Amino acid sequence: MVQDAAAPPLAEGRPTRPYVLPPLPPGHYYVEPPDPREAGSGGTFVLEDADPFDHYHYRVKALVHSSRTPFQTVVIADTYNFGRALFLDGAIQSSEEDEALYHEMLAQPALLMHPAPRDVLVIGGGEGATLREVLAHRSVQRAVMIDIDREVVELCRELLPGWHCGAFVDPRASLHFEDGRGFLENTPDVFDIIIVDVVDMLENGPAQRLYTRQFYDLARRRLRPGGVLVVQGLEFSFADYKAHAALARTLRTAFSEVHSYKTCVPSFLGSWGFLIASDTVSPHDFSADALDRAILARLGPNWLDHLTGAFLLASFCHCKETQFYLNMPGPIIEDDVAFVEPPDIEEEEPAGAQLPALSED
Amino acid sequence: MVQDAAAPPLAEGRPTRPYVLPPLPPGHYYVEPPDPREAGSGGTFVLEDADPFDHYHYRVKALVHSSRTPFQTVVIADTYNFGRALFLDGAIQSSEEDEALYHEMLAQPALLMHPAPRDVLVIGGGEGATLREVLAHRSVQRAVMIDIDREVVELCRELLPGWHCGAFVDPRASLHFEDGRGFLENTPDVFDIIIVDVVDMLENGPAQRLYTRQFYDLARRRLRPGGVLVVQGLEFSFADYKAHAALARTLRTAFSEVHSYKTCVPSFLGSWGFLIASDTVSPHDFSADALDRAILARLGPNWLDHLTGAFLLASFCHCKETQFYLNMPGPIIEDDVAFVEPPDIEEEEPAGAQLPALSED
Amino acid sequence: MVQDAAAPPLAEGRPTRPYVLPPLPPGHYYVEPPDPREAGSGGTFVLEDADPFDHYHYRVKALVHSSRTPFQTVVIADTYNFGRALFLDGAIQSSEEDEALYHEMLAQPALLMHPAPRDVLVIGGGEGATLREVLAHRSVQRAVMIDIDREVVELCRELLPGWHCGAFVDPRASLHFEDGRGFLENTPDVFDIIIVDVVDMLENGPAQRLYTRQFYDLARRRLRPGGVLVVQGLEFSFADYKAHAALARTLRTAFSEVHSYKTCVPSFLGSWGFLIASDTVSPHDFSADALDRAILARLGPNWLDHLTGAFLLASFCHCKETQFYLNMPGPIIEDDVAFVEPPDIEEEEPAGAQLPALSED
Amino acid sequence: MVQDAAAPPLAEGRPTRPYVLPPLPPGHYYVEPPDPREAGSGGTFVLEDADPFDHYHYRVKALVHSSRTPFQTVVIADTYNFGRALFLDGAIQSSEEDEALYHEMLAQPALLMHPAPRDVLVIGGGEGATLREVLAHRSVQRAVMIDIDREVVELCRELLPGWHCGAFVDPRASLHFEDGRGFLENTPDVFDIIIVDVVDMLENGPAQRLYTRQFYDLARRRLRPGGVLVVQGLEFSFADYKAHAALARTLRTAFSEVHSYKTCVPSFLGSWGFLIASDTVSPHDFSADALDRAILARLGPNWLDHLTGAFLLASFCHCKETQFYLNMPGPIIEDDVAFVEPPDIEEEEPAGAQLPALSED
Repeated sequence: MVQDAAAPPLAEGRPTRPYVLPPLPPGHYYVEPPDPREAGSGGTFVLEDADPFDHYHYRVKALVHSSRTPFQTVVIADTYNFGRALFLDGAIQSSEEDEALYHEMLAQPALLMHPAPRDVLVIGGGEGATLREVLAHRSVQRAVMIDIDREVVELCRELLPGWHCGAFVDPRASLHFEDGRGFLENTPDVFDIIIVDVVDMLENGPAQRLYTRQFYDLARRRLRPGGVLVVQGLEFSFADYKAHAALARTLRTAFSEVHSYKTCVPSFLGSWGFLIASDTVSPHDFSADALDRAILARLGPNWLDHLTGAFLLASFCHCKETQFYLNMPGPIIEDDVAFVEPPDIEEEEPAGAQLPALSED
Repeated sequence: MVQDAAAPPLAEGRPTRPYVLPPLPPGHYYVEPPDPREAGSGGTFVLEDADPFDHYHYRVKALVHSSRTPFQTVVIADTYNFGRALFLDGAIQSSEEDEALYHEMLAQPALLMHPAPRDVLVIGGGEGATLREVLAHRSVQRAVMIDIDREVVELCRELLPGWHCGAFVDPRASLHFEDGRGFLENTPDVFDIIIVDVVDMLENGPAQRLYTRQFYDLARRRLRPGGVLVVQGLEFSFADYKAHAALARTLRTAFSEVHSYKTCVPSFLGSWGFLIASDTVSPHDFSADALDRAILARLGPNWLDHLTGAFLLASFCHCKETQFYLNMPGPIIEDDVAFVEPPDIEEEEPAGAQLPALSED
Repeated sequence: MVQDAAAPPLAEGRPTRPYVLPPLPPGHYYVEPPDPREAGSGGTFVLEDADPFDHYHYRVKALVHSSRTPFQTVVIADTYNFGRALFLDGAIQSSEEDEALYHEMLAQPALLMHPAPRDVLVIGGGEGATLREVLAHRSVQRAVMIDIDREVVELCRELLPGWHCGAFVDPRASLHFEDGRGFLENTPDVFDIIIVDVVDMLENGPAQRLYTRQFYDLARRRLRPGGVLVVQGLEFSFADYKAHAALARTLRTAFSEVHSYKTCVPSFLGSWGFLIASDTVSPHDFSADALDRAILARLGPNWLDHLTGAFLLASFCHCKETQFYLNMPGPIIEDDVAFVEPPDIEEEEPAGAQLPALSED
Repeated sequence: MVQDAAAPPLAEGRPTRPYVLPPLPPGHYYVEPPDPREAGSGGTFVLEDADPFDHYHYRVKALVHSSRTPFQTVVIADTYNFGRALFLDGAIQSSEEDEALYHEMLAQPALLMHPAPRDVLVIGGGEGATLREVLAHRSVQRAVMIDIDREVVELCRELLPGWHCGAFVDPRASLHFEDGRGFLENTPDVFDIIIVDVVDMLENGPAQRLYTRQFYDLARRRLRPGGVLVVQGLEFSFADYKAHAALARTLRTAFSEVHSYKTCVPSFLGSWGFLIASDTVSPHDFSADALDRAILARLGPNWLDHLTGAFLLASFCHCKETQFYLNMPGPIIEDDVAFVEPPDIEEEEPAGAQLPALSED
């Protein structure tokens, strides 16, 4: 059956703005966002079901691509809230709206805190945006990217041009399709920075081999003196810290300086962690001003969308409860040993639970 | 972030069948259905939210089209369970898997019970499949289709070729894009069969003008003697009967023979009603054999996928509770009067609620 | 954060009905159904995810019970569309709105077509409603119910009183908590009717042992001459027939008369199948009148909510495509052999696809 | 139908941990989190549909309460991911897992940055947790709470005892059920701190009257010299900043010091904003150490779960893009004028989009 009746065109259109739009700075312009009433009822959604309990449905304007590679299912969709987005095995990887935040946070702290990164290795990072952030640094002479899934990389190259911005054709870049662990075991090369940007180690799947003590030992041996390893550090907040904290403990078996930072990535629906590991680099050695100067000198005033010195240092600052969990001992992640999360830690109701917090004596 | 780890290709593939597949009749062949494990986690869904309370998510392989016409939102998607499907304003209209059942049930009873249909009017029916069922009858010399939404019809013509099967280019067919009510008011023509195949009269929207006593009066005047009107009759079961029963009562203000029939349409997730109205035609005047003979003579043995004489007569047979609701008096649907459903009807627990049903005396 | 602002009470209430409500027959009364606007936004839903692709969300007013027994998860919820409903392992089992239809369809055909059922066995049927339908027959002297999950039965007894209607305390009933297969293997008793009312044989789980050739052989040996076995026959339509058809074939290895019937159960969102198997009973031997007379004589005019003779016979009448699939040879279900569904059967486009169906010569 | 088959008890239980659990500090203990496999398939969910496009389903163990007050729908549910949670009109308000973070962030910055808060007004805040944070300060002699919805407050009092911790019976507290705006218009009292903790101003609903220039003028007149107003500041990130930025601009019409801060609240699925407004208090005047000392002196070492001086100062630090949006001119919120969001602001691709960011000359 199909409509015959004279349905009205969309209600009365958008409400009129009862004010004059202020002028914008040079190089900026106004764009109307999608109108929920135009989207209509029903609709198409991409389901994120990576959480064991909760579900999130991203409403999409268009499903751009959907397939299964030898390694994973791939969905690329134009969402209403976050623009174009990439989903692997049902988990969002990055979105047009906030990929710049994610990729700047992943790549730039290590690059900016290293005195002069020259050789950089990216493991994973199929969208090409991590590579883009690396190649933004003129000091980088060679950027090697290793991703196991050729189909995903080719899809990203074609369908996510705003992510890689031409990084794949930069003469300093080389791209190999193989297992990142195998590459590290066989390469004679050493690097100033290694960035691990792979999918979460869900359910002890094969990605776990890129999260173990043995892997980090190997990575350390492929770093030059002064080299820095950075790892995408999974969801990370006081409400969801166990895998991140285990990663931090595991990295500490191989590196003397291991620091957790995080930021809220809107399309990830929460706070995302990162880990920077080395024997030399500590964020506490940097002031916001020093970082701002490094940004200006190395990247200029316009490259970064999000990072500033102060914002970056603030991202290393965690709340009391988060810091408590990070400091707790616990299991580390080993090859061939299933990672089983420890139980939750609860606290007996502290004395201060009476009002006021400090009673008068 | 994107995958690097060596995820295994799909588990171990489908399980081996522990038996030999039996041979098929001529003209049939085996096809593997989609494998849920291949679809992977997450996934893309079309949300059906026409029900005021419940939601249904159709999982889709591909979103074929999504837009907004001047009249409605249109989504065409390839679902896993029902093949390609058309959604208007978030409500499924028909699917590859079962459109033949819906359209045979809508068009064929009136056509087969009429002695020799020559001029047929279809109001709505944008997929072209109702037109197809009409044109299958050699006796039909002229089939006029009126649909208000040119964009939907053009989308169906291009993207749902298995629905219309070329009906739009049949020399007996003519297609007009206008309001069905206006057409009926202005046309001097009369018809043997009028088929109303328009969207549900949701929320007293503009489609309501194609469901009122005034509209049926008008339709009756455009029928030849012996003519038959058939109306898609909305969801219809003892659990959801109010709108259908009001339609039936409204039709009875204009016609002396009004009969409800229904069938379970899988992609509609329930039982769908139809109403056949005339002054001459009653299903009780037909035997299954007589209908089977009419089918063979008019359509041959292969045209219909679903209908048989016995199946068709069974579809007029309702359960006791459904029949009770159908027989109840109640409001009819009028121009310019909002249709407000009557309350639910409950029954005091009858005496038979004790066990056994008939107690011994 | 919590509301302070003076939100308006509910809009303007329900619209006024522009007509007088007709009087009702004795013993009936009007009840207002839930108002979607009252339910508000958001809301609580029970997810049915038994389908491998699609999801259905039942909106609920209240979650009455939720737990995990040793055998399955149990949810009892008050839904808006179907009243109170029971879900096991995420699959709806029965609802207030239509359990009478399901249970009458399951139990009554066998009981009514048997000349005088005296001893009846129910395997499964934890809600007690199948037992209720059995005990409605005064001829029944003994009804044995075997259910493996004591917790579910106790929950149903307490929370679904309208289902069992006191059947559990009928002196003719006895209830045992054990495996139905084990019971049949060990009992020396024989029965006139055996009703198998257990969960679907999802994923070759342990319920499969109640669906095999070996089980039906066993059941046959526990039937008296003239005895009848009836089995809840899973989802059944031309769009979803493989498991039902395999059941039918499997039953035919043990019984000479095996007949499929089905009805659309609203809360199951589609058409549900049943199978009646015996060596003596065929629905074709009964007229609608004969069945109506049996209903009147055995149950009186008020017991049944749905079944009539004509409706019951119509439920044995399937569409052409469904009947084709039912007639196809294929695998049967055996102990210790995983049931793997055959592939889909497709048909080459038949000659009749040109318009008109029968071309003139 | 109900289960008979011998379904296995839960697979093989949880995996054994291949390590010894480390000892915990005094007062802490281990608790097993819910096991997703125990939760089983299907399940019950609360739908958050406050976003115009996306949907979030919280899986719940139990639905504790569900009703409609004269002002809003109320759902209290025990979720798997966030413990007990309160939903109003389909939007989450606070959860057991992270209400401490939300309420500390809302109440403590103003209280700690004020030299000696004595009289405090809370508008909204029905859970009682904002009141709890206020009364934790011994300097507070009088805390007045105004909430319009008596039913919600009573439900919170009974069902969310861990939120209020007895605050409602503290002799310094008084609770009034009335409109917060009306209270402010009529009261002769003045306060050191006013905390506005009301639902979002969705769709220009009645809560909007608690977000306008006129309301803030009024609030300012009810503040003592040196007084501070704090407002829950809606979702706030570079991806969703328009309402927060309008609030900030509106507050600046009444106060000379207006500062935005935010934090990621896990159960809110993103970053939540707050605004502190006064003529005297700037976060830039405080060092982390000074704040830590104030915390210790006023609340002791155990009261706060989350806030530290450094964490609090970091929450005032926004990324470059967020800060840009906050600095933009735009509409302010007025009584009796619908708030219509300005369009999106886009930037022409800056010169730095070529690689490397700074090209060599």
